[in-house]
Amino acid sequence: MKNIAVLGATGSIGKNTLEVIESFPDKFKVTAISGKTNIGLLEKQINQFHPKFVVVMDENTKKQLCHSISDKKIKVECGCEGLNKISTLDEVDIVVSAITGITGLTPTLEAIKKGKHIAIAAKELLVTAGEIILKEVRKNKVNFIPIDSEHNAIFQCLEGRDKKDIKRIILTASGGPFYKEKNLHDISPEQALAHPVWKMGRKISIDSATLMNKGLEVIEAHWLFGIDISKIEIIIHPECIIHSMVEFIDGSVLALLGIPDMKMPIQYALTYPERMPTTLKSLDLAKVSQLNFSVPNFDKFPCLKLAYEAGTIGGTMPAVLNSANDVAVNLFLKKKIKFLDIPQIIEKVMDKHNVIQNPCLDDILASDAWARKEAREIGETL
Amino acid sequence: MKNIAVLGATGSIGKNTLEVIESFPDKFKVTAISGKTNIGLLEKQINQFHPKFVVVMDENTKKQLCHSISDKKIKVECGCEGLNKISTLDEVDIVVSAITGITGLTPTLEAIKKGKHIAIAAKELLVTAGEIILKEVRKNKVNFIPIDSEHNAIFQCLEGRDKKDIKRIILTASGGPFYKEKNLHDISPEQALAHPVWKMGRKISIDSATLMNKGLEVIEAHWLFGIDISKIEIIIHPECIIHSMVEFIDGSVLALLGIPDMKMPIQYALTYPERMPTTLKSLDLAKVSQLNFSVPNFDKFPCLKLAYEAGTIGGTMPAVLNSANDVAVNLFLKKKIKFLDIPQIIEKVMDKHNVIQNPCLDDILASDAWARKEAREIGETL
Repeated sequence: MKNIAVLGATGSIGKNTLEVIESFPDKFKVTAISGKTNIGLLEKQINQFHPKFVVVMDENTKKQLCHSISDKKIKVECGCEGLNKISTLDEVDIVVSAITGITGLTPTLEAIKKGKHIAIAAKELLVTAGEIILKEVRKNKVNFIPIDSEHNAIFQCLEGRDKKDIKRIILTASGGPFYKEKNLHDISPEQALAHPVWKMGRKISIDSATLMNKGLEVIEAHWLFGIDISKIEIIIHPECIIHSMVEFIDGSVLALLGIPDMKMPIQYALTYPERMPTTLKSLDLAKVSQLNFSVPNFDKFPCLKLAYEAGTIGGTMPAVLNSANDVAVNLFLKKKIKFLDIPQIIEKVMDKHNVIQNPCLDDILASDAWARKEAREIGETL
Repeated sequence: MKNIAVLGATGSIGKNTLEVIESFPDKFKVTAISGKTNIGLLEKQINQFHPKFVVVMDENTKKQLCHSISDKKIKVECGCEGLNKISTLDEVDIVVSAITGITGLTPTLEAIKKGKHIAIAAKELLVTAGEIILKEVRKNKVNFIPIDSEHNAIFQCLEGRDKKDIKRIILTASGGPFYKEKNLHDISPEQALAHPVWKMGRKISIDSATLMNKGLEVIEAHWLFGIDISKIEIIIHPECIIHSMVEFIDGSVLALLGIPDMKMPIQYALTYPERMPTTLKSLDLAKVSQLNFSVPNFDKFPCLKLAYEAGTIGGTMPAVLNSANDVAVNLFLKKKIKFLDIPQIIEKVMDKHNVIQNPCLDDILASDAWARKEAREIGETL
């Protein structure tokens, strides 16, 4: 029986993770969960999984939650301190790091230092602090399994393979809801939130529409697998059946295919290095009938270009890209800016940034704060 | 430097193998080659690769060859004895077993017993005597790498994976030149020899048109990977870009993709467990643009059904299937029977066969001879 702490249990990945855990009652136990403010869902999860610890992000939410679960023997903790605590508990074997943004950075680093098996879904952590995180992963020799379907696919394609044999990594991209749209100017948040294939959270759905999601994934893959940005390519594949590919120097291309369901990579990230039977249905390629591929349009989706630029420049630039994007997406969701303003804001912030190479954590956090402030200011002028 | 003996150097696989070897002059040396009667090509190969030994299949050919290469210090041997000799030479590291039919059986078994690294392209050996061969492979712990693109793909997908995690093997099939043809009755050998994707020998081109090739590959996969016939599926994939797939119990499907060129699997079979850079061009999926898949039509291509039947019955039945098919294809190539007579002859021979389970080599050879005689006799009555 493995004990699991789920950081970010009320988000899309968190909910899917709990669904996977639910199907292995003899294998996994939920020891701790964290949420931000969604008390209703947290209560439901507490009633179903009976964790020992729950973490919320502010004192007010803590008070409310304590009140409504006063009949239960559950410790409710608060904020970053609470997250650090549950991610390093002696009894916890697996930490699922699935908090949006960089809140999960310290608890994830602490969990790595404690030698926990990490299932990582926090893209932004890897984009902003990938170098620092992966250094700790290697130092502490922990299992560090990506949950993102693309990176999970690459991870599986590379398992047992020699990194020196990699010619290129090919990330597949659905293209998002607007890949064939001619005019992106008047896209509304509602339109952008309706992803054709994957059911995801709000922020990542917008990132998928701008293709920034794929750009962030390029940087993520760079850190996760230690592969030069120039060796990471993107291919548009609307059916999302091939989750990603690796080409080796001899021309062989290994690909991981499957139905597009987050529970698949989540399950492998939890059970690794074992495989367990799934309750999901098998991929039926004859039924899918056709898989399509095309080259990505960097002009139409400038976020892609910006991400490659930030990844190539390195240092604090990926953090700045990510933070500026985060702010811009929020402004778009609040209808304060247009869809096409998103890359404009990011580009302007990147242009103003003085890159620090080989940054320490403080440099990254400072760049993050600076970029958010800049992005907000630029957003206000639009 | 690895020394290679190529059994069947003048065939399609043999020629491709020598092309691969040619591109690694510092890694591979051709020590021995064998051919049947194509003296012209053998001479050319001798002049290019300077082997120490050459084997031909009859005394007359030997005499002619000796005469034309009398200026060279090359030993010319004859028949099965010659094949056994070159496949077991102390100085030979790798044996490429690529003789059509079952002539290569004894030399391949002898090479396995001597601990050679085997690159195996002789489908019929595995279909007829797979159990015996794989038993020796396991006993002698030799590398035994399939050259067939499908099995090489499965081999690569399974590398480093646990066999107990396999849910099913999915063999891809081009469908051959007549997959969409309505009337197969008047197909001529010339039409059948024109394969849309792969450039192959005459026998295998006809097998590809009847889909028997895929049926034989199902049985081959059964022995090579120790997987039950019921767990091996076929999917029609006309572009031949996905060379085959393995689905694991958790729903993950690993696939090997690449341009359809035999030199790719041949190279890996020679360099395994290493990978070497290829001179072939990279797969460009965006250029391919579309991959199609459909379920195979067992009614239109009864050879498929017969192969599954033979594989499921086991014992000497796969050998009988293979031998009857061999004779029938030959009769078709000589225009003595119609295209649709091929499965009819095979079915009649299979119906008459008294299966021997757990056959020894002699049982297999006797069944082979019996089936050939039966098939010829039935062919004459058509």
